[in-house]
Amino acid sequence: MIVIMEHGAQREQIAEIVERVQSSGLSAHIIEGEERTIIGVVGTPLPPTLQENLEILPGVVEVVRVSTKFKLAGWDFHPQKTVFAVTPQDAPPGTPPVVIGGQDVVVIAGPCSVESADQLLTTARAVHAAGATVLRGGAYKPRTSPYEFRGLGERGLELLAEARAETGLAIITEVMTPADVELVGRYTDIFQIGARNAQNYLLLEEVGKAGKPVMLKRGLSMLIEEWILAAEYVMAQGNPQVILCERGIRTYETATRNTLDVSAVPVVQKLSHLPVFVDPSHAAGKRAFVGALSLAGVAAGADGLMIEAHPSPDHALSDGAQSLSLEEFAGWMPRISAVASAVGRALPVPSGVEA
Amino acid sequence: MIVIMEHGAQREQIAEIVERVQSSGLSAHIIEGEERTIIGVVGTPLPPTLQENLEILPGVVEVVRVSTKFKLAGWDFHPQKTVFAVTPQDAPPGTPPVVIGGQDVVVIAGPCSVESADQLLTTARAVHAAGATVLRGGAYKPRTSPYEFRGLGERGLELLAEARAETGLAIITEVMTPADVELVGRYTDIFQIGARNAQNYLLLEEVGKAGKPVMLKRGLSMLIEEWILAAEYVMAQGNPQVILCERGIRTYETATRNTLDVSAVPVVQKLSHLPVFVDPSHAAGKRAFVGALSLAGVAAGADGLMIEAHPSPDHALSDGAQSLSLEEFAGWMPRISAVASAVGRALPVPSGVEA
Amino acid sequence: MIVIMEHGAQREQIAEIVERVQSSGLSAHIIEGEERTIIGVVGTPLPPTLQENLEILPGVVEVVRVSTKFKLAGWDFHPQKTVFAVTPQDAPPGTPPVVIGGQDVVVIAGPCSVESADQLLTTARAVHAAGATVLRGGAYKPRTSPYEFRGLGERGLELLAEARAETGLAIITEVMTPADVELVGRYTDIFQIGARNAQNYLLLEEVGKAGKPVMLKRGLSMLIEEWILAAEYVMAQGNPQVILCERGIRTYETATRNTLDVSAVPVVQKLSHLPVFVDPSHAAGKRAFVGALSLAGVAAGADGLMIEAHPSPDHALSDGAQSLSLEEFAGWMPRISAVASAVGRALPVPSGVEA
Amino acid sequence: MIVIMEHGAQREQIAEIVERVQSSGLSAHIIEGEERTIIGVVGTPLPPTLQENLEILPGVVEVVRVSTKFKLAGWDFHPQKTVFAVTPQDAPPGTPPVVIGGQDVVVIAGPCSVESADQLLTTARAVHAAGATVLRGGAYKPRTSPYEFRGLGERGLELLAEARAETGLAIITEVMTPADVELVGRYTDIFQIGARNAQNYLLLEEVGKAGKPVMLKRGLSMLIEEWILAAEYVMAQGNPQVILCERGIRTYETATRNTLDVSAVPVVQKLSHLPVFVDPSHAAGKRAFVGALSLAGVAAGADGLMIEAHPSPDHALSDGAQSLSLEEFAGWMPRISAVASAVGRALPVPSGVEA
Repeated sequence: MIVIMEHGAQREQIAEIVERVQSSGLSAHIIEGEERTIIGVVGTPLPPTLQENLEILPGVVEVVRVSTKFKLAGWDFHPQKTVFAVTPQDAPPGTPPVVIGGQDVVVIAGPCSVESADQLLTTARAVHAAGATVLRGGAYKPRTSPYEFRGLGERGLELLAEARAETGLAIITEVMTPADVELVGRYTDIFQIGARNAQNYLLLEEVGKAGKPVMLKRGLSMLIEEWILAAEYVMAQGNPQVILCERGIRTYETATRNTLDVSAVPVVQKLSHLPVFVDPSHAAGKRAFVGALSLAGVAAGADGLMIEAHPSPDHALSDGAQSLSLEEFAGWMPRISAVASAVGRALPVPSGVEA
Repeated sequence: MIVIMEHGAQREQIAEIVERVQSSGLSAHIIEGEERTIIGVVGTPLPPTLQENLEILPGVVEVVRVSTKFKLAGWDFHPQKTVFAVTPQDAPPGTPPVVIGGQDVVVIAGPCSVESADQLLTTARAVHAAGATVLRGGAYKPRTSPYEFRGLGERGLELLAEARAETGLAIITEVMTPADVELVGRYTDIFQIGARNAQNYLLLEEVGKAGKPVMLKRGLSMLIEEWILAAEYVMAQGNPQVILCERGIRTYETATRNTLDVSAVPVVQKLSHLPVFVDPSHAAGKRAFVGALSLAGVAAGADGLMIEAHPSPDHALSDGAQSLSLEEFAGWMPRISAVASAVGRALPVPSGVEA
Repeated sequence: MIVIMEHGAQREQIAEIVERVQSSGLSAHIIEGEERTIIGVVGTPLPPTLQENLEILPGVVEVVRVSTKFKLAGWDFHPQKTVFAVTPQDAPPGTPPVVIGGQDVVVIAGPCSVESADQLLTTARAVHAAGATVLRGGAYKPRTSPYEFRGLGERGLELLAEARAETGLAIITEVMTPADVELVGRYTDIFQIGARNAQNYLLLEEVGKAGKPVMLKRGLSMLIEEWILAAEYVMAQGNPQVILCERGIRTYETATRNTLDVSAVPVVQKLSHLPVFVDPSHAAGKRAFVGALSLAGVAAGADGLMIEAHPSPDHALSDGAQSLSLEEFAGWMPRISAVASAVGRALPVPSGVEA
Repeated sequence: MIVIMEHGAQREQIAEIVERVQSSGLSAHIIEGEERTIIGVVGTPLPPTLQENLEILPGVVEVVRVSTKFKLAGWDFHPQKTVFAVTPQDAPPGTPPVVIGGQDVVVIAGPCSVESADQLLTTARAVHAAGATVLRGGAYKPRTSPYEFRGLGERGLELLAEARAETGLAIITEVMTPADVELVGRYTDIFQIGARNAQNYLLLEEVGKAGKPVMLKRGLSMLIEEWILAAEYVMAQGNPQVILCERGIRTYETATRNTLDVSAVPVVQKLSHLPVFVDPSHAAGKRAFVGALSLAGVAAGADGLMIEAHPSPDHALSDGAQSLSLEEFAGWMPRISAVASAVGRALPVPSGVEA
């Protein structure tokens, strides 16, 4: 930690800092510059409140934190990239596991909400045939207004399990509150934490305890640092299987629903060993842009994509405007696969699927 | 609802819209402009998904919603401003209720976290003496990193109740998860929903059912419209006693922790009858700016303020950098009171309190 | 300057930094922490590119700048607040100067654009009668689209001068390009630099040379630090009479045209001795909110306001939606004056003006 | 144009709108909905101020504009994509023109600033050998602080011309002010308008008149719509050869210098026929991320890239932190080329250049 003093800070003000540092069992190194004095703080452990408590002492301009904030998600103490396999529960015999963070780019696809057996099965078959290996579908939906469709609940989970049993796709679905973790965990292969719950810390801890992989959507205005700290909440419960998913941030631009922060992919990869996915559908908000953003995400190095697809987007009960039709989805897959190959990854697409 | 067609949209595309509208039991009015055709949609109820489902039909540029989204929080069906009284539970006999949304500007003050009996009582006495009528203090703290102080839990609630019993201050404290609503509700007079939980809809519904006043902090990047819709979640459970609290939004500017959106005060007042408060402490993030923002909030028309104060900010376990000392708090109160008077409100400050 | 090294940075990497620092004529102080090494850089002058050139050396995490960036606008070498008087050119004998940065809050008012002699004179008389001391009016208008009204040019300047000659109001008007500085300077008392030109550095230098006061609107997404550096451009030409004007920044919120960053007032006052004004009209974008934001700006400590007023806002050639009518303006002035008094300032309003 | 009235708007308020519309020579169509009345406005030309003047009439909630704002840059009246060839002035005989907007992805590369003959020529040879076809280099540099390096001026232009004469690369350089257009135009093949000048309308018009291609960087917080309107300023002077260049927007995230809005590529392509480029260097601000963003930009469909490269980034006089070394640049080119091929474009890279 480094304490930067004001131009003209007084001797006693500096002494006060030194005393506070030493009384915390740390040592203080003073560097007198031409314009300002700075004080280096050395030692461990740093009391968590030391920074803000020093910041308000008279004569202090700023306190800069030097040590890493990521004990589990950062590279410092975990120098290998996280790779893990998800084996779909109760899947047909011979179904291969889905490897996350490995050589293959993983595509998750499916409707925003599970609406019916027919809707879900039709979608599952089509996205499976096109090369997706994980099926998404919301059974519990957070909605901005209380007057909108909020999901089928457990019936939705059952339908997801049925689709998995038939197709062998792994499934991912959102859990919204700690009390639902046990129930959702009985069905899902991967927990999804939505953007609105990205800092719902009790929920993060609860899925951390549940021992299944967790995908953390980035909050709407979350710093990348805060997002990785949210992953620390899950990991601190003993669960290292965390996926970060960039899904667009809120900016002033209104031409898209959110602004896809595609730079988050290489930034996360520099700061953390966790796999990082891109959700082009929520970022774009309009299906006309979903394809281009999928290609951009894979080109930037994403380990996977999460794409909304629906048999009839203009009749969807939620997020129809950003869902691809099943034909559109199948049309984009070979193009995504081509970009994956161009950047040294792979996305196997069953033969017969054509752009 | 209005559907705006592309320049050169085809006759069949327009017919498709009209058919979709009519099959929803609504009527469609076509206006042919020089450049574009627009279609007015009339009737109720509007299916909640109609807008996005029309938006993706070929030939459509945009669908504009016309009807209000706020059934309970808006003025349309509730033309009086919301005013309600909070009577501190188990307060000393003769303690007057705190009237929210009335003529008086209400000041909530106290530490970020409840740390000890001594810290809390010292604060409660001082802020009471300076004119505050509600005591804040966190017993359950959401923290960005899992390695920081997270509050005293129920012991914190007990200490709040003790401070209330002595001073007669009403109390407000944050509840973070639905499972805690019953416990927190046994102690608190007002539930606080924090910015990170502003779209935790199950929590909003749970406090809605609890039947005590609720203060909704604005989410870090929440549109004012979304914030009022969050209030709808609480109100739809039969609880009309909701306070909206502006606490700064996230922008590109880093000189302050957040950017106080002081315009939110008059904007909320135009859209809703609910009372609106300002939290200058979380907005500023630095105590040097808290006083000026308090004055600005009251001048803009806020019904109240929520200010962090601590006996020894440089030893606080959380948010010390933005806490006023008790002397600073007492020093600002007469100045806030003077501005309240200047805008036709009142903030009674006990005699003997001086700037 | 402080160089923060990676956890595990190598000895040679540290040596490379030290060498680069020393070869710039500076000295390097190494502090070895438990997790990281940091290097303090001491001496002057700092080569302007040193920071970014060190940042990309291997093993470096971050380089933190310590010394101030504001040589002229900051408090370090100019410990008095800037106060200056503007004497309206060719004003009626006995017209008092307008003191900027002093005890009195200064109100600038007038139409967005100068449209006609009648419109301008009517406005000038009315705002003068209500207590404004400076008249605004655009003769050269930057417009987002090339197909909109762009001002009367020199004829507009003449009309401003006529209004000044009659009323004694000082005048302020925008200059858009270096080539116009001489012409505009022949008429205006204060140059206005618009938000779109806030980083038009050649224009800043040109008005710096012209030797008349300059008001710098904050750019739409300008950091406060960048804004003060823009003032340095003007001041570095020998012109210390600079006013900073907060006029709203661009954020994700769309309920207002821009988001008034009212915190900018105390933040600027902490960083700089220059006077700071608030423009509530461009911030709000809707006249319903202009009054409340005016009060908030003054309460926060602004040295002045800039308010758009027009005899007939619904017939204005630009920005009608955010202009007050002359009656509305006169109605707000006593309320603004009351808030000014409440915060220890003054805004003299002629008797007979009532809210 | 559509006027949306308040719930409960009065008959006279509606009549006032209709009268205002008709007195502008337009016709008004009233649609009475269950909750609100809306009024469709039909006819041309729309007076430019009609929208904002109607917006402030009593009873009006909102006025929605329907007709396109882009007369020249939009698809409505120009249904072919813009493609044009740039022939480097005084280039060696046989030098092929650079085709912008065609099948090939165009790479512009070079240093932030022209610093010396040696620096520029070394760079020019290297980027040419790696497959770039346009050389960038600033002779006039806008800098946030007045105390930084501001370019070599005309000497920089001469050096660019020398590098072109030797290599056959076309050149692009920034022009900062209308008075410099003639001089810069004598040397450059393409004018660059920087982000800070994106709404410097007089400069836009001046380069519009100069009759050479113009690249418009997107302003730091410019809406895509405003950016295309800036292109209209250039085009309205008779110059159709405009390139839009996305270079990152300002958001709350600080891990990168700016946030690359990669969605801007498909959004611009939907709204306009103009070619769109991506500048990954200014977006990232750190060279570690430049490669990934280059790939993302091309994958999203960009017509070209603008990349900073320098023989010795850690000695650069500006923007060293975001410059690739010449070896790094050569290393990324084949990877960019592979992605270009994957999305059906081409980026010919001379043989012998390897990743």
